[in-house]
Amino acid sequence: MTTTIAVDAMSGDRGTEVTVPASLSILRKDKALKLLLVGDVEKIKEELGDYSDVAQRVEIQAASEIVEMDEPPALALKKKKDSSMRVAIDMVKAERAQAAVSAGNTGALMATSRFVLKMIPGLKRPAICGELPTLSGHVRMLDLGANVECGPDMLRQFAIMGSVLASEVDGIEEPSIGLLNIGAEDIKGSEVVKQASKLIADSGLNYHGYVEADEIYSGRVDVIVSDGFSGNVSLKTSEGVAKFIMGVMREEFAKNLITKLVALIALPIMRAAGMRMDPRRYNGASLLGLRGTVVKSHGGADVLAFECAITDAAKQAKMSVPDRISAAVERQLESFESQTSS
Amino acid sequence: MTTTIAVDAMSGDRGTEVTVPASLSILRKDKALKLLLVGDVEKIKEELGDYSDVAQRVEIQAASEIVEMDEPPALALKKKKDSSMRVAIDMVKAERAQAAVSAGNTGALMATSRFVLKMIPGLKRPAICGELPTLSGHVRMLDLGANVECGPDMLRQFAIMGSVLASEVDGIEEPSIGLLNIGAEDIKGSEVVKQASKLIADSGLNYHGYVEADEIYSGRVDVIVSDGFSGNVSLKTSEGVAKFIMGVMREEFAKNLITKLVALIALPIMRAAGMRMDPRRYNGASLLGLRGTVVKSHGGADVLAFECAITDAAKQAKMSVPDRISAAVERQLESFESQTSS
Repeated sequence: MTTTIAVDAMSGDRGTEVTVPASLSILRKDKALKLLLVGDVEKIKEELGDYSDVAQRVEIQAASEIVEMDEPPALALKKKKDSSMRVAIDMVKAERAQAAVSAGNTGALMATSRFVLKMIPGLKRPAICGELPTLSGHVRMLDLGANVECGPDMLRQFAIMGSVLASEVDGIEEPSIGLLNIGAEDIKGSEVVKQASKLIADSGLNYHGYVEADEIYSGRVDVIVSDGFSGNVSLKTSEGVAKFIMGVMREEFAKNLITKLVALIALPIMRAAGMRMDPRRYNGASLLGLRGTVVKSHGGADVLAFECAITDAAKQAKMSVPDRISAAVERQLESFESQTSS
Repeated sequence: MTTTIAVDAMSGDRGTEVTVPASLSILRKDKALKLLLVGDVEKIKEELGDYSDVAQRVEIQAASEIVEMDEPPALALKKKKDSSMRVAIDMVKAERAQAAVSAGNTGALMATSRFVLKMIPGLKRPAICGELPTLSGHVRMLDLGANVECGPDMLRQFAIMGSVLASEVDGIEEPSIGLLNIGAEDIKGSEVVKQASKLIADSGLNYHGYVEADEIYSGRVDVIVSDGFSGNVSLKTSEGVAKFIMGVMREEFAKNLITKLVALIALPIMRAAGMRMDPRRYNGASLLGLRGTVVKSHGGADVLAFECAITDAAKQAKMSVPDRISAAVERQLESFESQTSS
């Protein structure tokens, strides 16, 4: 069965220059994929070049506007009804695509997705869920920045959504859930985190309790739940630390002729190590909680990274993640009702 | 002039095994330093061995109790009045020492310091300020976990305290201050962060606005202000990422005979790089806002790391950091009053 993904072709720092080559590349690899490229038809066609080999699986959908990276979400939602972002999400709503991918303005993407697709009943707010590497595989973490302030019940909902994603897309049975806190002891942490911990513990999920941020990359749990502020701080800190460590390495290896020679010899090993940690391979964060699949790519994504975001969207679309989340939320509600009525 | 530091000799995962050798080592390097070793006299003496060369600069102060790492702070404060931690802080209060160093329970150290030494007038809560490496030097960041929830005015106070520390101890004129947020745009972030930004901008400090967590290690600013939850998440994430990257490197270099050989050749360079990032060299976080200097060492500190914490305390004591913070707070109040009365 074919999966159709709507691609916001105008999004990201480099627009069609990245989105179109990435689309062509993934189409050539995945024969069961169909893409709807949304945006400026002329620009898209120009970038497509000769695509006769995949032409039956490409459709171009015109959209006359572009949401700017620094545009206030509410304004984008109100004024730009023919933006490439909006039209891509409309395609999902109209069931012409099973998922949308955009490298655009996160806030606008959130607001537009929520407005067009609506939330799954029982869920309050969408969360951004990302994939991070660990020594033994990877971990899913949410929220990475959609919700600056989160109450205990929102954190419980994130736990459910993350659990579904890890079980459906990663194939993990009963994924283990950790709640981000600043101390493993019960006495630490904010009131919100403490209350959320109780709610998640009662939710029937495979809850492992608090995790501290130094355990994120240890692979101790499959899913990490946090509010959007801390989640985003953690994600961005990781990028900064990785850059810093690589910077120091580079300086030390560039010190003199001998160190440069050693660098040359060590290069293939360093490259192999770099590959395993390559953030491009983890590009593509899921907007969970919506009645449709939307994946957010990093704005600065290159072709490889944007390709990964499309692949991620295709996987989620195939596994009908929104339906699974909806079912999980219903089960939770039923079990809660049977508990309170008994 | 001699500086006297009170050392909680029983603190940390390994107690006197680490604190006493570290004390001896730093005494042999810094002839202007005097140490008060606080704790179990027998154990301290046993660990001291032959210390005749520095004996005039060592004093042992008996304390019969130890605060456990997982002991609730309020309980430690109430019940253990003769703990090594409490007595070390008492020494500062009694002006027998200019600073105290402990690798013990952070919460108990905070509560005890606050109870014994009191806050500087005009400041609400102490903050934990740490030093982190950057490519060009280092950055000071606070709060790293003392205050889970922080209002806008607390964040402004942290900015003042961090600025004083960076100017007095690091010798930076008008240190640049950044406020941790999840987006550089004005529209992002919580209400608290937005309000804090306005307060800091009006404070007369060298305020550079918002910084995202990926800029912490870039050295863009000298001081980073955040609430204790995000600050701790960022700090712990950094530890986790560093461990993860080193783990991947180790695995790749250990893959086969050839990679192991390359590792051997690259070892001195990797070691030089490692030295520059060595967290032990950055051990010692300052508890700022108190009427005395207290430095918290990592619980798992080894001899070198604990030595760094003592050095840090000595520097702050020499520069009378609490007095400088007090003066800065007064200046702020005066300028505020003259602004409102004009």
